[in-house]
Amino acid sequence: MIKITLPDGSVREYESGITGYAIAESINRNLAKEVLSVTVNDELWDLTREISQDSSIILHKFDDKEGKHAFWHTSAHIMAEAIESIFPGTKFGIGPTIENGFYYDIELPEGQLLSEKDFPKINKRMLQLCQMNNPIKRSDITKAEALKYFKEKGDEYKLELISELEDGTITLYSQGKFTDLCKGPHLPATSYIKAIQILSLAGAYWRGDETRKQLTRVYAISFPKQKMLIEYLEMLEEAKKRDHRKVGKELELFHFSPKVGMGLPLWLPRGTELRDRLELWLTAELKKRNHEMVKTPHIGHVDLYKTSGHYEKYGADSFQPIQTPAEGEAFMLKPMNCPHHVEIFKARQYSYRDLPYRMAEFGTVYRYEQHGELHGLTRVRCFTQDDAHVFCRPDQVKDEFKSIIELIIYVYKSLGFTNYKTQISLRDPEDKTKYIGTDENWDKAEKAIQEAAFEMGLKPTIELGEAAFYGPKLDFIIKDALGRSWQLGTIQVDYNLPERFELEYKGSDNLSHQPIMLHRAIFGSMERFVAVLIEHTAGKFPLWLTPVQVVLLPVSEKYNDFAKKVLELLKNYDIRSKIDDRNEMIGRKIRDNELQRIPYLLILGEKEAESGNISVRKQGEGDKGEGDIGSMSIEDFAKMIKTEINEYFED
Amino acid sequence: MIKITLPDGSVREYESGITGYAIAESINRNLAKEVLSVTVNDELWDLTREISQDSSIILHKFDDKEGKHAFWHTSAHIMAEAIESIFPGTKFGIGPTIENGFYYDIELPEGQLLSEKDFPKINKRMLQLCQMNNPIKRSDITKAEALKYFKEKGDEYKLELISELEDGTITLYSQGKFTDLCKGPHLPATSYIKAIQILSLAGAYWRGDETRKQLTRVYAISFPKQKMLIEYLEMLEEAKKRDHRKVGKELELFHFSPKVGMGLPLWLPRGTELRDRLELWLTAELKKRNHEMVKTPHIGHVDLYKTSGHYEKYGADSFQPIQTPAEGEAFMLKPMNCPHHVEIFKARQYSYRDLPYRMAEFGTVYRYEQHGELHGLTRVRCFTQDDAHVFCRPDQVKDEFKSIIELIIYVYKSLGFTNYKTQISLRDPEDKTKYIGTDENWDKAEKAIQEAAFEMGLKPTIELGEAAFYGPKLDFIIKDALGRSWQLGTIQVDYNLPERFELEYKGSDNLSHQPIMLHRAIFGSMERFVAVLIEHTAGKFPLWLTPVQVVLLPVSEKYNDFAKKVLELLKNYDIRSKIDDRNEMIGRKIRDNELQRIPYLLILGEKEAESGNISVRKQGEGDKGEGDIGSMSIEDFAKMIKTEINEYFED
Repeated sequence: MIKITLPDGSVREYESGITGYAIAESINRNLAKEVLSVTVNDELWDLTREISQDSSIILHKFDDKEGKHAFWHTSAHIMAEAIESIFPGTKFGIGPTIENGFYYDIELPEGQLLSEKDFPKINKRMLQLCQMNNPIKRSDITKAEALKYFKEKGDEYKLELISELEDGTITLYSQGKFTDLCKGPHLPATSYIKAIQILSLAGAYWRGDETRKQLTRVYAISFPKQKMLIEYLEMLEEAKKRDHRKVGKELELFHFSPKVGMGLPLWLPRGTELRDRLELWLTAELKKRNHEMVKTPHIGHVDLYKTSGHYEKYGADSFQPIQTPAEGEAFMLKPMNCPHHVEIFKARQYSYRDLPYRMAEFGTVYRYEQHGELHGLTRVRCFTQDDAHVFCRPDQVKDEFKSIIELIIYVYKSLGFTNYKTQISLRDPEDKTKYIGTDENWDKAEKAIQEAAFEMGLKPTIELGEAAFYGPKLDFIIKDALGRSWQLGTIQVDYNLPERFELEYKGSDNLSHQPIMLHRAIFGSMERFVAVLIEHTAGKFPLWLTPVQVVLLPVSEKYNDFAKKVLELLKNYDIRSKIDDRNEMIGRKIRDNELQRIPYLLILGEKEAESGNISVRKQGEGDKGEGDIGSMSIEDFAKMIKTEINEYFED
Repeated sequence: MIKITLPDGSVREYESGITGYAIAESINRNLAKEVLSVTVNDELWDLTREISQDSSIILHKFDDKEGKHAFWHTSAHIMAEAIESIFPGTKFGIGPTIENGFYYDIELPEGQLLSEKDFPKINKRMLQLCQMNNPIKRSDITKAEALKYFKEKGDEYKLELISELEDGTITLYSQGKFTDLCKGPHLPATSYIKAIQILSLAGAYWRGDETRKQLTRVYAISFPKQKMLIEYLEMLEEAKKRDHRKVGKELELFHFSPKVGMGLPLWLPRGTELRDRLELWLTAELKKRNHEMVKTPHIGHVDLYKTSGHYEKYGADSFQPIQTPAEGEAFMLKPMNCPHHVEIFKARQYSYRDLPYRMAEFGTVYRYEQHGELHGLTRVRCFTQDDAHVFCRPDQVKDEFKSIIELIIYVYKSLGFTNYKTQISLRDPEDKTKYIGTDENWDKAEKAIQEAAFEMGLKPTIELGEAAFYGPKLDFIIKDALGRSWQLGTIQVDYNLPERFELEYKGSDNLSHQPIMLHRAIFGSMERFVAVLIEHTAGKFPLWLTPVQVVLLPVSEKYNDFAKKVLELLKNYDIRSKIDDRNEMIGRKIRDNELQRIPYLLILGEKEAESGNISVRKQGEGDKGEGDIGSMSIEDFAKMIKTEINEYFED
């Protein structure tokens, strides 16, 4: 008998040779149906692999990333089997899982080309293979055997991969008529997979090396239930509608010009207004919380970055140094604001009473990204961080963390992000030597971060060994309206820059001490944040933030003067309004302004001009018949707007 | 007899051979005493030179730049004579006049060094030479004679200069024992000069070439009255006190770190607040005037600047292009915002009804300046322009100019600059070929600018031939409190970029037309403007602008709570206040806060706490006994502040 310890600490006894699947079945028959893979003593295993010694296990379902991994990995093998059966002689590169689904890099036989037209056939064949419920078998083999197998098959890519593996570590997985080189784990059989969708094609150089052959990358996704696939495809459809590149164009927020350069956004007037409003609002909140705003240049002498270590980190892979016509100076576009802020800190002397010193800037930084990796506003070469650095004493770390957490929560709530999780990254307790800073300070800071997070009501996951070498950190990962995760806010402890720049303050003991530096961002970058905000809200920004809150639509030119009067009245209530006085039919005016996502549309005609009341229509709800809020006085409308805005800022 | 036409158009007849001096004397004996040089048919002449044909003349006094030029040029010769008499064998380079005074580049005989200790001796000798009232004589000589003279004298620098002159154009001027190569004109005699001050020394390479010998540059100034010298020296003393580098440090506005790089300002919190307030205020004014704000990156692809022509203009002499690790792209730090704004303009299509389109940005640009030319915030390598570009039709140029002029006047007045002049730069009517753009558009624009300026009540000087090749312009030159001139605002017409970028709009004729582009700046650059504002106000910024308007000074800790109460009350009136609750004597608190140029100091002690009234003291007037404004209610104080602020914005 062997002892199996479950995650809740309970221990069960089984015959040696028991499998993960059998353990699940012994606990609950329904559980067994849902379980996809198992972690045995920190190793990810097939459910059907026999356990022959005392072990701790975790069973994984589709909800877990480990469960998805097995599910999609098996799906990738089935896709390969289907493609091979349709296109015999296809060669296979790698077929990993990704965040949503999986892909396989393949090379069809000479002269054949895969196209989207082939998707239904592959999809259908895959579903047939799944219905066959073929078992998936794992086999340990020698390197010689593996080489022999794929040599006979004529698959040069697998041969190259095997040639780099050590003998004794090689496993193959087979199902039906297909065998693949694979570490696993996999599902017990193919019938677990109920729904499949081939998604797209792309070119991909073998091993990412552009000097080598370009293979065809086939993307797909699969699910244990048909309903889940439908939901996923709907989400994709919705995501496409909300794509910030599309919405950004419709709302005229930003623009990219190849002539200015890829990945260098030009902010159009409405986008600028949106960004400015975000920045001004956050600046006001920062000032309330005793931050000092600064402005620093976008370049710095190369020596500055040599001292900070950024030259080593960004030098070779980023924008190259800027030479000058004389005097042999060299400057770098700044990849981060910290060195500049450190130099401002160093401009005067500090006593322990002067700390914490909180310095903030909306600082634009430049980092080179490969052309192919650029994506709208989420991956750019120029972005503005809502950056702040707190210089504090070790005993102030906890309070500073609490205060920053409070601000982050407040900001996210005000912008409609109520669904987020947090993660604390700590040192690897097994190897403390690779971190800079004293053991005592690390202990203090790690304790302070955790206490601060818990006291502020967060439930962070704790990741050991995930801290940077310069300090532990707390990250905020928000979920948008489509359930996608975005890492935005971060608070990081830094022992490194204070040491490299020899920062100091005079302690109460009259001796010189080194301050601790905290880096933090709330939005992360204005570019990325605006992109996420667009996709989260589908361009319907929170009422307090949106550039134009109300549009006045006179039904004909006759009512333009009345519209001007209403505009003035709304101005007195600080409501941002504009008039659409184009000589167009009212239906057209409504459609155009609906597309502009202006939250409220006021229709102004004879009835309104006579009564002095206004007819209010809410954006995006017209089709459902719920859009017409009806007629009300301007005063009541203003109150309604204020109430809606206040909801963002109330606890 | 010859006819002499005076500037007022009147004509007088004189014997041929009459001199400028004699003409002045014939008009008015007192005038003759003040006249220093004369323009004869557009050539600047000595007063003693004989006029032998009909001529138009202008007589110049010390107030005119032509008068000053003769005065200081003669002074330079006298300084040379004085130095030569004290240090025989001194060699002389060039000795021109400058904006304030003159200098001479000299080389003392081997082994001798000039130092500040020699100034009194030179000064005294110069005054002696002036009192001698030596006449100054002009002589035309041949190149051979000139070479012979300076060869004998052993002055290699003059020999080099003469060798480059054409025979027949060479004149010498002599006074007392000194003769110099010179084009003139000069004063009639040395006694015109009544007051002299040797100011400073500097090193200067012969002909500005660092491979050649370094000479000693001696700076000095002179005046026709002792009183004028005293006033000038007082002004210099005051300017030193107001030096923005000194005041900027005292007020903690900005900082330069050699580690970040020379000429790259770091804006400290108070400076950032000042700049932000200026920018927000101007932004609000721009929005009222229908400008669209944009944000653009600080780099652009090299091709962008090749199209715009900036690469040719700034390429070799400025920051060098930024290479990338891959793809062979090259970017430039932007020397100007225009190309980015043009690309934004090109992002959509326009009809004649959409114009004018006014685009504005506080855009930070980068231009390389030699290390030695950097100076505080007035000459930097990174500066932020309050830039705007108006894309308009030819028929809109006048109204746009008027609207920009209105804004510029409003802005300057609000900041306390009430003394300024304007200059319009037009084409050279003799050579229209060197300008881009149609003759018709130039005529229209030049007329529009002049009409706009006059209709707005400006009295611009008109400079023919001073327009840039791409269009005419209007410049604003303000005078600061010390009488120094600063060119700040500019409005320029541009036919060049619209052509290079092939901009277009659809006219009412349904055909494609090229818009005209106006460039304009009001502050010029935020860096330079803040420097000028500091020196103009000596750091006492306009009340509406200054970061902290009021400081509360409790006379002891006992009154800190009362101070907090007052602070809250002032906040309700939107008055920016802070408390100095340091444990210091009230005298020290007053001194420290006076130095911070906080406009109002409120002393809070027992009397105030009991009555609820406050004792108000005005910054900088304490010593004169006028600083104590006395006791008043908080409400009255708030009213007083509002009244003072409103004065800046009233007509």
